[in-house]
Amino acid sequence: MSVCPFDHPALGGLLGDEEIAAYFSVEAEVKAMLAFEAALASVEAKAGLIPGESAAAIIDAITTFEPDIDRLRIAVSIDGVVVPELVRQLRETVGGKAASDVHFGATSQDVIDSGLMLRLKPVLAIIEQRLVIFLRALDSLERRDGKRVLLAATRMQPAIPIPAGDRIESWHGPAERNLERLRAWMADGFALQFGGAAGTLDKLGDRASEVRSALAGELGLADRPQWHSQRDRIADLASTLSLISGSLGKFGQDIALMALSGDAIELATGGSSSAMPHKQNPVSAEVLVSLARFNATQLAGMHGALVHEQERSGAAWTLEWMILPQMIVATATATRLATELTANIRRLGGKR
Amino acid sequence: MSVCPFDHPALGGLLGDEEIAAYFSVEAEVKAMLAFEAALASVEAKAGLIPGESAAAIIDAITTFEPDIDRLRIAVSIDGVVVPELVRQLRETVGGKAASDVHFGATSQDVIDSGLMLRLKPVLAIIEQRLVIFLRALDSLERRDGKRVLLAATRMQPAIPIPAGDRIESWHGPAERNLERLRAWMADGFALQFGGAAGTLDKLGDRASEVRSALAGELGLADRPQWHSQRDRIADLASTLSLISGSLGKFGQDIALMALSGDAIELATGGSSSAMPHKQNPVSAEVLVSLARFNATQLAGMHGALVHEQERSGAAWTLEWMILPQMIVATATATRLATELTANIRRLGGKR
Amino acid sequence: MSVCPFDHPALGGLLGDEEIAAYFSVEAEVKAMLAFEAALASVEAKAGLIPGESAAAIIDAITTFEPDIDRLRIAVSIDGVVVPELVRQLRETVGGKAASDVHFGATSQDVIDSGLMLRLKPVLAIIEQRLVIFLRALDSLERRDGKRVLLAATRMQPAIPIPAGDRIESWHGPAERNLERLRAWMADGFALQFGGAAGTLDKLGDRASEVRSALAGELGLADRPQWHSQRDRIADLASTLSLISGSLGKFGQDIALMALSGDAIELATGGSSSAMPHKQNPVSAEVLVSLARFNATQLAGMHGALVHEQERSGAAWTLEWMILPQMIVATATATRLATELTANIRRLGGKR
Amino acid sequence: MSVCPFDHPALGGLLGDEEIAAYFSVEAEVKAMLAFEAALASVEAKAGLIPGESAAAIIDAITTFEPDIDRLRIAVSIDGVVVPELVRQLRETVGGKAASDVHFGATSQDVIDSGLMLRLKPVLAIIEQRLVIFLRALDSLERRDGKRVLLAATRMQPAIPIPAGDRIESWHGPAERNLERLRAWMADGFALQFGGAAGTLDKLGDRASEVRSALAGELGLADRPQWHSQRDRIADLASTLSLISGSLGKFGQDIALMALSGDAIELATGGSSSAMPHKQNPVSAEVLVSLARFNATQLAGMHGALVHEQERSGAAWTLEWMILPQMIVATATATRLATELTANIRRLGGKR
Repeated sequence: MSVCPFDHPALGGLLGDEEIAAYFSVEAEVKAMLAFEAALASVEAKAGLIPGESAAAIIDAITTFEPDIDRLRIAVSIDGVVVPELVRQLRETVGGKAASDVHFGATSQDVIDSGLMLRLKPVLAIIEQRLVIFLRALDSLERRDGKRVLLAATRMQPAIPIPAGDRIESWHGPAERNLERLRAWMADGFALQFGGAAGTLDKLGDRASEVRSALAGELGLADRPQWHSQRDRIADLASTLSLISGSLGKFGQDIALMALSGDAIELATGGSSSAMPHKQNPVSAEVLVSLARFNATQLAGMHGALVHEQERSGAAWTLEWMILPQMIVATATATRLATELTANIRRLGGKR
Repeated sequence: MSVCPFDHPALGGLLGDEEIAAYFSVEAEVKAMLAFEAALASVEAKAGLIPGESAAAIIDAITTFEPDIDRLRIAVSIDGVVVPELVRQLRETVGGKAASDVHFGATSQDVIDSGLMLRLKPVLAIIEQRLVIFLRALDSLERRDGKRVLLAATRMQPAIPIPAGDRIESWHGPAERNLERLRAWMADGFALQFGGAAGTLDKLGDRASEVRSALAGELGLADRPQWHSQRDRIADLASTLSLISGSLGKFGQDIALMALSGDAIELATGGSSSAMPHKQNPVSAEVLVSLARFNATQLAGMHGALVHEQERSGAAWTLEWMILPQMIVATATATRLATELTANIRRLGGKR
Repeated sequence: MSVCPFDHPALGGLLGDEEIAAYFSVEAEVKAMLAFEAALASVEAKAGLIPGESAAAIIDAITTFEPDIDRLRIAVSIDGVVVPELVRQLRETVGGKAASDVHFGATSQDVIDSGLMLRLKPVLAIIEQRLVIFLRALDSLERRDGKRVLLAATRMQPAIPIPAGDRIESWHGPAERNLERLRAWMADGFALQFGGAAGTLDKLGDRASEVRSALAGELGLADRPQWHSQRDRIADLASTLSLISGSLGKFGQDIALMALSGDAIELATGGSSSAMPHKQNPVSAEVLVSLARFNATQLAGMHGALVHEQERSGAAWTLEWMILPQMIVATATATRLATELTANIRRLGGKR
Repeated sequence: MSVCPFDHPALGGLLGDEEIAAYFSVEAEVKAMLAFEAALASVEAKAGLIPGESAAAIIDAITTFEPDIDRLRIAVSIDGVVVPELVRQLRETVGGKAASDVHFGATSQDVIDSGLMLRLKPVLAIIEQRLVIFLRALDSLERRDGKRVLLAATRMQPAIPIPAGDRIESWHGPAERNLERLRAWMADGFALQFGGAAGTLDKLGDRASEVRSALAGELGLADRPQWHSQRDRIADLASTLSLISGSLGKFGQDIALMALSGDAIELATGGSSSAMPHKQNPVSAEVLVSLARFNATQLAGMHGALVHEQERSGAAWTLEWMILPQMIVATATATRLATELTANIRRLGGKR
């Protein structure tokens, strides 16, 4: 099935991003959730909350455990969340007395939100790296063509000549600042979620903060108070993603407009037309605009999900699941296409 | 991969809709596009624009032709659209002199937009049918519980007693009108797109309108002037979908609020919690809210795509591809969940 | 104050629409609400629900009554809605025994939603009329320039020559269909809202439907069951407005792109630049794009407001108030600018 | 006129914010633009670019100059921007040889964007201060009621008891982080825009950077390279505003839900109903939700405006003007209402 363009067997070649999408496969999700459960067992055993034998059995089971996805699918249609059935299956696999120590003191949201954070770490590192590469590509373009001359266009009218470098800077400046914004988020945003049923870690008694801190350390996440209904970090990330794709959309739009009006740019290759073989369509330039508008659209939904009622909102949380992964892939695709497009610029501007 | 919740192996059990999604598989897309190419060859042969042998060869080839999806994927990354490569492969398969008669006078957009319309016919019929079923379920609920008494709530405050039937009517009325809106769209919206390279059907000479009319007839679509850059029908459909899911979101929200405050409703079953076995979460009620907010969010993108520059906008058109199939599945899922949820209501309101 | 561009003393000259905005002044709102209260008194007296003397006194008071807006302002900050204080003031003015018969059996939402409908009637008639005028202007353009030749542009690349008339049709077709959509809404949408406290018209006993019908007749609105929490008509209107402005945005975008690339169009006048006196900016073309994107953005909010909890949602209803009037003015402005812009086209396309 | 709720004579009492709106009056806008022109004349005279007498005459004229707003209104309908006519009028007032030295080397966007930044400084300081006050109000609430007990609700179902302080923290945490985000923006975001016709400050020759630096100093803005088409700072601010209002929307939603279900909260006062005198509607709680959803909706438009074509996009820039001031007032209103609502909480939670 391929309702969504990012997963689509054909369109995915343009819009998708296999490197990133791998982190949103059900396998990667399950792996991250199990990493949470293993780490939880480990630190709870050290704190004396569950027997060491239980932790060993749980960790051991997790090394080979593969959930029955069909059963997960059925269960999620009832529970609204995959964790209860995942835990059920894991308990069956662990067996014995240790079974009841699986997931001790945790709740679905702890597993899912922390599992998301575990995957966001490599995912955002890839986007960060691609932005760096794009910036370098623009630097090369600037060195080669920056002193050529372009006719500026303001309010859809030719204005006065400017150095091509000025237009390059209009792509470089935002990308550089967005890189800083992304890094600022990454420096602080990978927060462990661990609160138990209603945020109080009620089953952990006076060991709660110690266990949470150890769990964060074990998972390589930041130790933060539970944030199950505090979605500002997630919405802030969505904003940062949309800033990235939006600024790259301006780049794409500029290239497409130059391709339309003619001699200000020469592109190496473009897409073919089924009706007009002479054409060279600036496909990736256009798609950068699509991705920018896609993410800008989605952002309204992610910010709407800030209105997260009470201790856990099934409605708002599910809405995040529907949107955030797509925004991430759209952003990653945009960074990839932007670098490809830059490499495709044979000449920007006219005579120096 | 499962970046998108509707295709997700686990989440798809809740959010996805296999019946509808089947029409958005690459196989179904290709099948619809090939149906266009076969019908095109047939009517062009009848009009004497291509040899009858060519048409026979093309139609014959299409009966067994299966495109190389990997090559489609690669080509779409360059061309931005799947058709040029699909036509290339089909021509290879057809071979001989007939090869060059494949896709005669048509352009990518003709194939894709008409192919979409071919699939929308059964898809919207399913949604229509589900709305009918939901309305019947509400009718049954009204017969059983309509005379019970509910405490109305206005501005988040208990107000005065009302018949439960009044609240049921607040779900029924919009669903009924939305059904009419959907039917009105269906009566007029399944429009053939056929314009050739730039809308003029330039290669068909004075046979253009005759061929277009015959093609529409062959495909069971409405014969309409080309609408390649006139996206109002598509945006109007998106609005209708969002009206459907939005009104069902109100239904879901009402049920969720009643489940929260207590005795106004009794639900048969709900989702389980990984931390609190005593809870019965009104999962489908919440998800109806998520789907309503998802579609409302997406609608901004579909209406933004009305700004379709010149004769064909790669940017705006691609944006439609990214959003519309998801809106359709979200709407279909909402109609399914709404009926399930209605069936799950054991009692609405208190004593008569 | 001028937080909003449509009311702004300077920007309003471009973005605002005095003819339409007059219907959204507090004076016009109050007038419509008082028309409701007068008609209500009249029909309730005829039905014997309040004394004829009360109705006479109420109707008489309303002919000269002018509310204290400062007190309304203070009261709305507490009540969230203007009606309780408006009724209080009207009762003071009416005085005597008749005072308590003011607003009998009605609630705030009856007054506000019906008052909106009363104002939508002339407002939509203006937009309808402007669309007709725009279509005529396009017809003239077609007659004058339709046979000239334009270079089509697909995917931001010059394609093949087409008649200018084809591009004109890409603006005309959607405008014509949107006019039909608007008229279809107008034929059915001006619905009386009258439900009383929680929709049951509880105070009217067995005269409820008779009074409602008479009230609708008196006000020239359609007699419909109360729809206080059924916002599909309102959201559907918002969609229609956005279809209108979105399609006009495509027109503006096309003109702006032609103005940028040069010889395909000659415009009579444009805006001046503070830095480059030689330029003629295609201001209204650009602003049509802004208005299209503005309305597309707002539409997400209006559809989000479909999730109207229980019998009356202060949250969703207030959101409508924040958005709908602006969408209406944006649409009206777009229709005005589109006709002006068409008149400004000296030549479309090149030699015939 | 009052198309927009924030300027509305009656609704403004609830939704508007006079303190903030004053900065968006045409008078405040003009004042900020004239401050730019005065500072520009001053630093250009010091750099020897215009005569000292001209600067003196310009600065002197500005002390008493009041533009003819009606002429601005007419001109903006043609020019799309207020500056050309404002400069024309200022030149008339200055008169003599100095007239032509007004606005030397600058363009409309320099005046408008820098003028916006000058007004954002006090405006954001007010929002910052109000967030601080809200946080203090929550601190007091925590001290008074934090140890009371609430029944947590997850997925719209009663869960387990938690300290009221946990729910307070779910409002406090995001507000605190949003305050930090706002401060981070304020530390870097108040950037001078100064680029001249097409960003090159072409008329200033080799004095360009010196003049820009001095101008920034004179105006108290950060000296930054021109950013006329780099709208990431503006979109980032919009995101921060929406994070603020979104998190306060969660607070409002929680209060409204508690008010609905009963004994978890006692509010001092609420709005009255025109039909049900016994009710106390949690108006400001609901309106916080409206404002959150309003800003989330608008954010899509602000991020869409990142696709700012070439050196100056009339379309995208105008869209910013239509949305940003409203987002600012919506955010400011939300901070005000949130503190009022907190003060209105007589009791949160039950027995300790």
